[in-house]
Amino acid sequence: MQNSIPIYVGGMFKTTSKPLIVKNPFDGSFVAETFFAEESDYEYAVEAAVKSAEAMKNLPAYEKYDILITVSRELSTQRDRLAQILSAESGKPLRYALGEIDRAAQTFTEAAEEAKRLPREYISIDRTPAGKGKEGLIKYFPIGPVAGIAPFNFPMNLAVHKIAPAIAAGNPIVLKPASSTPLSVLELAKIIDKTSLPKGALSILPMNRTEGNQMVVDSRFKLLSFTGSPEVGWKMKNDAGKKKVVLELGGNAGVIVAETADIDVAVKKCLVGAFSYSGQVCIHVQRIYIHKNIFDTFAQKFSEAVQKLKFGNPMDPETDVSVMIDEANALRVESWVNDAVSGGAKILCGGKRNDSAFEPTVLTNTKREMKVCSLEIFGPVVNIEKCDSVEQAINYINDSEFGLQAGIFSDSTKEINLAFERLEVGGLIVNDVPTFRVDHMPYGGVKNSGFGREGVKYAILDMMEAKILVKEF
Amino acid sequence: MQNSIPIYVGGMFKTTSKPLIVKNPFDGSFVAETFFAEESDYEYAVEAAVKSAEAMKNLPAYEKYDILITVSRELSTQRDRLAQILSAESGKPLRYALGEIDRAAQTFTEAAEEAKRLPREYISIDRTPAGKGKEGLIKYFPIGPVAGIAPFNFPMNLAVHKIAPAIAAGNPIVLKPASSTPLSVLELAKIIDKTSLPKGALSILPMNRTEGNQMVVDSRFKLLSFTGSPEVGWKMKNDAGKKKVVLELGGNAGVIVAETADIDVAVKKCLVGAFSYSGQVCIHVQRIYIHKNIFDTFAQKFSEAVQKLKFGNPMDPETDVSVMIDEANALRVESWVNDAVSGGAKILCGGKRNDSAFEPTVLTNTKREMKVCSLEIFGPVVNIEKCDSVEQAINYINDSEFGLQAGIFSDSTKEINLAFERLEVGGLIVNDVPTFRVDHMPYGGVKNSGFGREGVKYAILDMMEAKILVKEF
Amino acid sequence: MQNSIPIYVGGMFKTTSKPLIVKNPFDGSFVAETFFAEESDYEYAVEAAVKSAEAMKNLPAYEKYDILITVSRELSTQRDRLAQILSAESGKPLRYALGEIDRAAQTFTEAAEEAKRLPREYISIDRTPAGKGKEGLIKYFPIGPVAGIAPFNFPMNLAVHKIAPAIAAGNPIVLKPASSTPLSVLELAKIIDKTSLPKGALSILPMNRTEGNQMVVDSRFKLLSFTGSPEVGWKMKNDAGKKKVVLELGGNAGVIVAETADIDVAVKKCLVGAFSYSGQVCIHVQRIYIHKNIFDTFAQKFSEAVQKLKFGNPMDPETDVSVMIDEANALRVESWVNDAVSGGAKILCGGKRNDSAFEPTVLTNTKREMKVCSLEIFGPVVNIEKCDSVEQAINYINDSEFGLQAGIFSDSTKEINLAFERLEVGGLIVNDVPTFRVDHMPYGGVKNSGFGREGVKYAILDMMEAKILVKEF
Amino acid sequence: MQNSIPIYVGGMFKTTSKPLIVKNPFDGSFVAETFFAEESDYEYAVEAAVKSAEAMKNLPAYEKYDILITVSRELSTQRDRLAQILSAESGKPLRYALGEIDRAAQTFTEAAEEAKRLPREYISIDRTPAGKGKEGLIKYFPIGPVAGIAPFNFPMNLAVHKIAPAIAAGNPIVLKPASSTPLSVLELAKIIDKTSLPKGALSILPMNRTEGNQMVVDSRFKLLSFTGSPEVGWKMKNDAGKKKVVLELGGNAGVIVAETADIDVAVKKCLVGAFSYSGQVCIHVQRIYIHKNIFDTFAQKFSEAVQKLKFGNPMDPETDVSVMIDEANALRVESWVNDAVSGGAKILCGGKRNDSAFEPTVLTNTKREMKVCSLEIFGPVVNIEKCDSVEQAINYINDSEFGLQAGIFSDSTKEINLAFERLEVGGLIVNDVPTFRVDHMPYGGVKNSGFGREGVKYAILDMMEAKILVKEF
Repeated sequence: MQNSIPIYVGGMFKTTSKPLIVKNPFDGSFVAETFFAEESDYEYAVEAAVKSAEAMKNLPAYEKYDILITVSRELSTQRDRLAQILSAESGKPLRYALGEIDRAAQTFTEAAEEAKRLPREYISIDRTPAGKGKEGLIKYFPIGPVAGIAPFNFPMNLAVHKIAPAIAAGNPIVLKPASSTPLSVLELAKIIDKTSLPKGALSILPMNRTEGNQMVVDSRFKLLSFTGSPEVGWKMKNDAGKKKVVLELGGNAGVIVAETADIDVAVKKCLVGAFSYSGQVCIHVQRIYIHKNIFDTFAQKFSEAVQKLKFGNPMDPETDVSVMIDEANALRVESWVNDAVSGGAKILCGGKRNDSAFEPTVLTNTKREMKVCSLEIFGPVVNIEKCDSVEQAINYINDSEFGLQAGIFSDSTKEINLAFERLEVGGLIVNDVPTFRVDHMPYGGVKNSGFGREGVKYAILDMMEAKILVKEF
Repeated sequence: MQNSIPIYVGGMFKTTSKPLIVKNPFDGSFVAETFFAEESDYEYAVEAAVKSAEAMKNLPAYEKYDILITVSRELSTQRDRLAQILSAESGKPLRYALGEIDRAAQTFTEAAEEAKRLPREYISIDRTPAGKGKEGLIKYFPIGPVAGIAPFNFPMNLAVHKIAPAIAAGNPIVLKPASSTPLSVLELAKIIDKTSLPKGALSILPMNRTEGNQMVVDSRFKLLSFTGSPEVGWKMKNDAGKKKVVLELGGNAGVIVAETADIDVAVKKCLVGAFSYSGQVCIHVQRIYIHKNIFDTFAQKFSEAVQKLKFGNPMDPETDVSVMIDEANALRVESWVNDAVSGGAKILCGGKRNDSAFEPTVLTNTKREMKVCSLEIFGPVVNIEKCDSVEQAINYINDSEFGLQAGIFSDSTKEINLAFERLEVGGLIVNDVPTFRVDHMPYGGVKNSGFGREGVKYAILDMMEAKILVKEF
Repeated sequence: MQNSIPIYVGGMFKTTSKPLIVKNPFDGSFVAETFFAEESDYEYAVEAAVKSAEAMKNLPAYEKYDILITVSRELSTQRDRLAQILSAESGKPLRYALGEIDRAAQTFTEAAEEAKRLPREYISIDRTPAGKGKEGLIKYFPIGPVAGIAPFNFPMNLAVHKIAPAIAAGNPIVLKPASSTPLSVLELAKIIDKTSLPKGALSILPMNRTEGNQMVVDSRFKLLSFTGSPEVGWKMKNDAGKKKVVLELGGNAGVIVAETADIDVAVKKCLVGAFSYSGQVCIHVQRIYIHKNIFDTFAQKFSEAVQKLKFGNPMDPETDVSVMIDEANALRVESWVNDAVSGGAKILCGGKRNDSAFEPTVLTNTKREMKVCSLEIFGPVVNIEKCDSVEQAINYINDSEFGLQAGIFSDSTKEINLAFERLEVGGLIVNDVPTFRVDHMPYGGVKNSGFGREGVKYAILDMMEAKILVKEF
Repeated sequence: MQNSIPIYVGGMFKTTSKPLIVKNPFDGSFVAETFFAEESDYEYAVEAAVKSAEAMKNLPAYEKYDILITVSRELSTQRDRLAQILSAESGKPLRYALGEIDRAAQTFTEAAEEAKRLPREYISIDRTPAGKGKEGLIKYFPIGPVAGIAPFNFPMNLAVHKIAPAIAAGNPIVLKPASSTPLSVLELAKIIDKTSLPKGALSILPMNRTEGNQMVVDSRFKLLSFTGSPEVGWKMKNDAGKKKVVLELGGNAGVIVAETADIDVAVKKCLVGAFSYSGQVCIHVQRIYIHKNIFDTFAQKFSEAVQKLKFGNPMDPETDVSVMIDEANALRVESWVNDAVSGGAKILCGGKRNDSAFEPTVLTNTKREMKVCSLEIFGPVVNIEKCDSVEQAINYINDSEFGLQAGIFSDSTKEINLAFERLEVGGLIVNDVPTFRVDHMPYGGVKNSGFGREGVKYAILDMMEAKILVKEF
């Protein structure tokens, strides 16, 4: 990797007068220099997006497919290199970084395929005498320039979830990555730049939050797709003017372990759900409700497993857990855990901070008002609590302002049905953790967890506008 | 009801020189006289169908809706009268006859609604450079005159499952009812005749089997929809020439009662599934496999319940079971049961014949080769057997030449998933009997049980032909 | 009709201390007294909506169907009476009022049918190894209490476009009608109240604009559906907090009359599109661009036809055009026309105001900056202008901040394709006016004309929230 | 290419005692030796298919995708080599052979993508009280072993249209190529053999017609997909027993050139449609009906263009036309043309035979009874005739026992609509020839031209069987 990485402005790679130094969260070492966009870069990028809209709209399906599948294959080809960059900028253990590159490739493949299957309807109009002799074609047209704002925790794949559908739909996009993790997606820009995508249809602009906010109010964008924190996201919705808004925010995801659960499977899956990337995942497992008859067994096995997690340098393939994104976040998590303990919670394992690292931590005896329960902890902390029944666990999970995804371990259809009908979430995963996501499924939250759905096909639909042709036959 | 009911030939009600006397299977009393179609009637009806095809094709959606919804409402209005006719001609207990009229009304409602939602697709063509600038409209056109052959056991609703979709699709239809039960569907013809359906688009022609067979080979029909016995149906497929064929045949439907089942629910549902209309139902419950740990309980409760079934005149609202369609069938069932007993089967209750009545009968210790197991008994006989596991029960059910529907009583998703993935059937009903059917769901068998699916939307699709318009955009 | 009409608050009909007198716009005569909701009524209604949400969610499909189809039939039964009320409160000629009741009945029928066909998906999850052995069910759940705000111009059907989909989706709704035209929809409440719809699931609350605005900010509503003016609508979007917003706003709809058009058909259709209900229609024909070779013929025939329109009492079945909703609007139209004339426009016919009536008016030689061109006139005024080609006409139509629907009269596929691909509108009607709408088609505008789509199925989709169940198979 | 090519029997490449010498139709030169399957090979292959069915059914979507996309890419990689083999065995000019390999690759890509999107439905069951609390999942399962019989004219892509969907659906397939052109598809077997497709799931068995016919009656196959001549195909349908049958047969495709047509485009497209691969194409342009006002211009330009077609060695990239598949066919075409001339037809150009070559020939003044009109000529002969109107041309085209595809050159929506509504065909191509086909569109004929539709998604649907799970929620 080069020491200096240019940003991508309206089809051109360039440096600016505002350097942005990216450091490795694990050891603070220099990873690379890149740049904040200047105001003129922003203007250039947005105008380039506007100008390329017509060319994007006119791309035939096979050309969009070719662009997107080429990017997908190139991501796979450069898998190792990209995962290292991603790991270095984010502190994400290499194993998970590799998985993220694979998923980004898959997201582009899905978008390539969906570009050939854009939504279209052909309907009768003659359901009433007024429509006699008429029928309707509903074709979806690209909505226009898209503003994307992506977070640090999946620097590649969550950006790709905005870029790939935008291209498939035929829209230009300007993407703002997180300032801490801009590198992998700038590498992606290099890959995309080599395809036949019309120049100007993609820009990658690192900006600080204030500068980024002009994207929210800029009327040249027709859709804002934001992934990040709830308070920031919901404010954007009110500031967005006439554009569409899609918000992918966070949560305090819950899991139910019912009496018929396979405990070993549940332990193994919850371990990953709770601690992968130090819990800095929107659908991180934060609350586990276990049937009282199996609680002790679960608690023991789970705690044992947590203690075996290997802390280390993210670049080490053996590493299970590593540092958090920065010390400020580790301090925040520490204070929330301390508050919980003061309020009566018990630490089953973990609980200590070392600089920006926080130990994988299991709490119990928590109360709903504690921050570790009620807010999104976005750190390696999980609460495990007893429940009397699946119904009670459902109530516990619903007793939250959030509702992204949930999991249930059970073999009972009655329990699963009840959970699916009642849980106030965007998705329920059976015999797996809420952290489960494949990139073509609809994904998003209810309540404070989000607005709208991502998942390639669903993102594409949001990025298009229906137009009906009523014609004679 | 009148004493003499005309047949419906190409839009005209008429009598013929070949009277057909319909008697009540319960007491042999005269129900009404109607008529066999003469050869000239057949010719007239088919020609009328051919001639009305263009008018049918051109009916706008709202007019098809009006015709079909009007019929639906009129069936509801005449519900009691029609159920009495149906009960009298078929010996079906009034309670079930009323249910059949309700279902026929529902089938027409579904067809009315689907007439406004005929299949249509609008697809990209430019997935390769060869298709640049082109897109495709796929519109489904009526296939042409339909030949329908209906059985005696649901004289109204199984005829309606051919007539209503034919009209919704825009096709003329000539329907042959069973000679024993032509009356209710001739009453339906009177209702339909009063709508604006183009004359000639519907004929109801009682014929004997030999005369009816000319429908199979007649090349003016573009589709043959047959509901009846397997041997007759499969022969038709080979004789049908260039026309499409849909076969709804029989089976020896199986039910699994797993260890987690609610036994009382299972007993109650199986009772109806096994003995309603004396088992003369394509999806009659013939084989029940019960987990060994609950077999005795089930067997006892089930036998007790069977013995409480009230035999009587079908016209009596209190009657649960009555006679079979004729003595020949009762004799056949008797001989199969006797054979089974000779081979080692044990009668838990029932087992006796009185003229055309056969007692509701529960057998156990049957063997797979016995006719009561391997053939479609189409009578009030059910075998209940132990199984070690759901997997074993699946194997028992699959060990058959038939595969229409099956049922499973279980709360375990593992068991239900296994049954759904492995059972060789057209449908699996969870916590209910295979006898369950609603009229909009796809219905039909695999293996020797059938070819194609009915259910309003699916029947309509079969009765239409796709045509694609590749156009520029 | 009674003299005093109660409002409908959370399932109860009641009067309030704030009378609302409804007068006939034609002659100012008293039509009826009804009431503004008091603050406590509002609270009661919203709480009743919240409380009824669970019951609404649990309604089985057949029960929603029964409720909605019953309302549809009752609207047809009371057609004449309701049309007279509607005509009296709105000044809409009876002929069109009857048509509106018919459409409202049809909208309920569509909703009844769609209640049985709510969106659902069943997808593969195993597109990557991560999803092996899993599949997904996507079920759509009701979003929760809906706030509906309806305009005066289609007092019944535009309210029904909010109420009927809300019920079909399983949502409670609180509807605010226009203060000038609350009567017909209060009559609808009486019809709905007699069905089995859970009490509290519908409220009809006349309120003034200020009071109505609390619906916009009230977080108990999960969706706001507004039909009205652009400036009001777009402000609501920014004030709506976390709820979804659907806006159906206005436009200055354009029509293209190409050289291959059937002029007589175009004249006849444009006449209705321009002057029905005095142009107080969101998709009123405001701008007609006619190929220069046929302009003179069109202009002559059109002007002649306009002059034959019969002005009169809206209750007279012979009346083509009548008064506007109030004198303020007539004055506004008059001033816009005068401005246009001052700026060089020429009046081909009409142009005069009498109290609240404004003559059907045809202008030419208008300029794009004139209010009669660039703003929504919402009055009986149409501009007809020459164009050199369909392409030029497309550019004229697009040169507007609005984009609701457009029409094109042409037999050339090239021209129609060009118009469909390029026109910035929600719908293009071939050989008919943009005023064309059937109630099941997606309907809505782009640019300043709206946000989202109505049309029963599309409105239902907006009123539901996807939830995915990822399960094993 | 090797001199001796083994056949592919149940996952093994092997030779047999029955050599099959493939010669180049152009010069009779030896291309390669391969083998007819022996009876034991047939048995082995079918049993292997039966045995691999379970493994095929259990392939996850991602694995089917991997297999199919790998084949697609490998076809592209080996494009030149494969096209040369195809050209050598079939005498197809290289340019078209290259195009066929490209299409085969595309067909595999489509199948790969559709393997991730197999048909599935999720429906309400509670449309009537009987279904309260129930919902339905409709999953499509592989139908079982497929028998495919492919013709000589597209030796690769028409085989691929059976193989690729079979794999995508999860079915084993035994394919019989044409004895004259088995080589390219045996090369395909080598490519497929290197993937992870379960061994036994594919066999490629050259057989003569008699031996091949056992596939038709063999009850171990659940579906027969045949592409070939009508008389053979329709007989198969009657002999097929209980299996499904899909027939892709021939036709005498017609084209309409309306008065508004772009004549130069029509000439250019018709030239390719009529003479590519010497007209040995199912959707070869056989009849062109040209509006009388432009007939002379068209006839002149077309004849001139025909005379410029370059005859030569198919392997020469410059070659437009070459020999027919064998001399017998050339003799047949010669005799039909001679018959036509005797009956009054006039040769505008061509008409002569040289061994197995027949000149590109344009006839006029033909009569409907002449074989060149009424039968499928499957040779380089086209009839051009005058018509008074599009309506008349439609009648001419419909006056045939066939109905595969048709073309219309027109800019009039009225004419195109009329043609689409009235033409008795499976597809109508606007401003292009009936010869147009992309591999994902539904393709197939009505009347004697076929039974069912191919096109990847549609073929997959045919190769699957619906199973419904009715479950509680």
